Amino acid sequence: MHSQGQRFRSIEQTTYFLFVAKWVLIALGVGILVGSASAFFLVSLDWATRWREAHLWIIGLLPLGGLIVGLSYHYWGQDVVKGNNQLLEELHTPRQIIPLKMAPLVLFGTLVTHFFGGSAGREGTAVQMGGAIADQFTRWLRLKPRDRKILLTTGISAGFAAVFGTPLAGAVFALEVLMIGRVRYEALLPSLLTAVVADYTCHWWEVGHTHYAIPDIPAMQPTFFIWAVAAGIVFGLAALCFSVVVHYFGNVFKSTLKYPPLRPVVGGTVLAVVVYLLGTTKYIGLGVPTILAAFEGPLPFYDFALKLLLTTFTLGAGFKGGEVTPLFFIGATLGNALAYFMPLPVALLAGMGFVAVFSGATNTPIACTIMGIELFGAESGVFVAIACVTAYLFSGHSGIYSSQIVGSPKH
Amino acid sequence: MHSQGQRFRSIEQTTYFLFVAKWVLIALGVGILVGSASAFFLVSLDWATRWREAHLWIIGLLPLGGLIVGLSYHYWGQDVVKGNNQLLEELHTPRQIIPLKMAPLVLFGTLVTHFFGGSAGREGTAVQMGGAIADQFTRWLRLKPRDRKILLTTGISAGFAAVFGTPLAGAVFALEVLMIGRVRYEALLPSLLTAVVADYTCHWWEVGHTHYAIPDIPAMQPTFFIWAVAAGIVFGLAALCFSVVVHYFGNVFKSTLKYPPLRPVVGGTVLAVVVYLLGTTKYIGLGVPTILAAFEGPLPFYDFALKLLLTTFTLGAGFKGGEVTPLFFIGATLGNALAYFMPLPVALLAGMGFVAVFSGATNTPIACTIMGIELFGAESGVFVAIACVTAYLFSGHSGIYSSQIVGSPKH
Repeated sequence: MHSQGQRFRSIEQTTYFLFVAKWVLIALGVGILVGSASAFFLVSLDWATRWREAHLWIIGLLPLGGLIVGLSYHYWGQDVVKGNNQLLEELHTPRQIIPLKMAPLVLFGTLVTHFFGGSAGREGTAVQMGGAIADQFTRWLRLKPRDRKILLTTGISAGFAAVFGTPLAGAVFALEVLMIGRVRYEALLPSLLTAVVADYTCHWWEVGHTHYAIPDIPAMQPTFFIWAVAAGIVFGLAALCFSVVVHYFGNVFKSTLKYPPLRPVVGGTVLAVVVYLLGTTKYIGLGVPTILAAFEGPLPFYDFALKLLLTTFTLGAGFKGGEVTPLFFIGATLGNALAYFMPLPVALLAGMGFVAVFSGATNTPIACTIMGIELFGAESGVFVAIACVTAYLFSGHSGIYSSQIVGSPKH
Repeated sequence: MHSQGQRFRSIEQTTYFLFVAKWVLIALGVGILVGSASAFFLVSLDWATRWREAHLWIIGLLPLGGLIVGLSYHYWGQDVVKGNNQLLEELHTPRQIIPLKMAPLVLFGTLVTHFFGGSAGREGTAVQMGGAIADQFTRWLRLKPRDRKILLTTGISAGFAAVFGTPLAGAVFALEVLMIGRVRYEALLPSLLTAVVADYTCHWWEVGHTHYAIPDIPAMQPTFFIWAVAAGIVFGLAALCFSVVVHYFGNVFKSTLKYPPLRPVVGGTVLAVVVYLLGTTKYIGLGVPTILAAFEGPLPFYDFALKLLLTTFTLGAGFKGGEVTPLFFIGATLGNALAYFMPLPVALLAGMGFVAVFSGATNTPIACTIMGIELFGAESGVFVAIACVTAYLFSGHSGIYSSQIVGSPKH
């Protein structure tokens, strides 16, 4: 056993050096490209959001925006329309290299969605741009299937890391998202290195991220412990609710409107009317101002429910974007609402919800805990971890990504 | 698929509530007991260390200490002598409930080792006390094999969390340590809850932990990125070296001295002479003062090597304790030595080494990254992560725990 180990080892260390050298170089290539693409995306998204908020009449043209997104995917994007699930499926059963056009299409679709006032996120966009860009290296470097799998993971990791400014969460997210309840470490180092490079690149372009702060984190107490578990249960059920409703709206649109480009047109019309009746743009777009407000003081308790409905409807209708920033919104406002009757500080509950609903919906509890620590500091760690892990447990065995495989049952 | 999912779900949520309620209660039981045991251990260890430092002649009696440890394990501890590996083996292939006597025996053995001046750690002690105490609940609650596995995990998690004051690292360590390169989440929530309770309990007894600080963490730069990877490689090779040498000394003692109680007597004699010749107690015991000094300014470059030899010799001879605090020592002083020619702050390199050598030796990169964040703050996260993950990769497929199974190759 041991002498065999010794022999094994001398070969191993050389292989490790080559492995590390290779992936440092690839991490630089993928990370710089994906980080730059994410930076460009963030800047243009910011512009689209500001333009919309300054010219609200544009929301009346949401059906037109829907038509543009619908037609572009129908005529040019049939082979990339499955988005994040397509990346997961390629990781599970490789079929063909992700077409590079996935990147510009999802970028364009997301910008149009936000410009005309849909309610969506951005991580789907960043992850798909990341995966599509990374996968081009498969051809250029003639990588073998095993390396291609690692490469796709680095693309997901880079996109996530750059778009949220959280490199460690990005690195772990890319490993966790593949299977529910199981993580394998083959891609750990490449994923981490690429995430760090992508995040660095995004900052190099002087594109920053929103800062969230939990000013006052109490010391742990037995009652807080129980309340944190209870909050986690609520966040998990909200995540379950989101997944069920997003699949529901998707199915309703698919079964009633056979011609895909019509779906976002009809959906866009309904959304425009709803936004007009609500009389506020609070629940469309990314919703960053409301997320920030959730850390400050009391908000209407129903905020999370309206955002949940508008986002699931927007995405179900075929608009583009991601689910994660809306999940942040839902979690932060739900946490804010829980502060009405839970004896934890409102900012802490908002922060716990921010990452925990996301954890439940994507089944990535450790990435979300790390994200909470990267965004709010290490002091919040224990509260954030209890919320994320409990929410993960309660969100059921299907999340927002239907191509996730159950690697290990949740209990 | 979906209607099946729906049916599945209504049953699932109820089960989840019962699962959470059950494990909250068990976490309270195990966490309070193990946290209290760890608190008692830390206090008595502190006493033993201070007594020894005030009465250095006691080191001359190290062979006697060895005899006591050797005889107690030979006559009362044959069935618990494998320590941490025994816990891992029970997790892989359950045979019998861990005898409760593992807890007092390892506590006693560790205190004797430190009292007479052996070089060892404390996590092995805490983890073994945790596992042995937790496993008693198997009988009391008549748990099924699947639950017993989770229970043993909570014991490891609780011991680790309480002894180092790092609940999140403890929770993840207990999951990661079982298999190299693969993590399953069945025990994630129970492990986390028990870690939090155990850590809280230890603080409730007003037993604190050493604080390490990295005052100045630079922003990431391309050169720092490469240096961090290079440092990680060095830390990984140091971890590999530690694992090889500890197994080597163990084998030497086993093959030359057939009567086990004699091994620590002979080992203790050699150690006492070496400590006398070195003229310093810097390299025995836990070595916390030197670890702290490594964050401050230049130390002799060979510190890590002497600690490595003394610890592997102490443990190979059959003294008790753990490997982790010596691994912290080795990592921190090695990081300190790297600051002679790497352009990173000395405290940062010491902190990176502190967790990274441990990561390589135990194959737990994510737990060690989280530990770094819990000890040094979130700002060090990226540097710490690169060091821990690279060290993990370079330490080979065998660590200090020979009962770890390779779940997934490292590259």
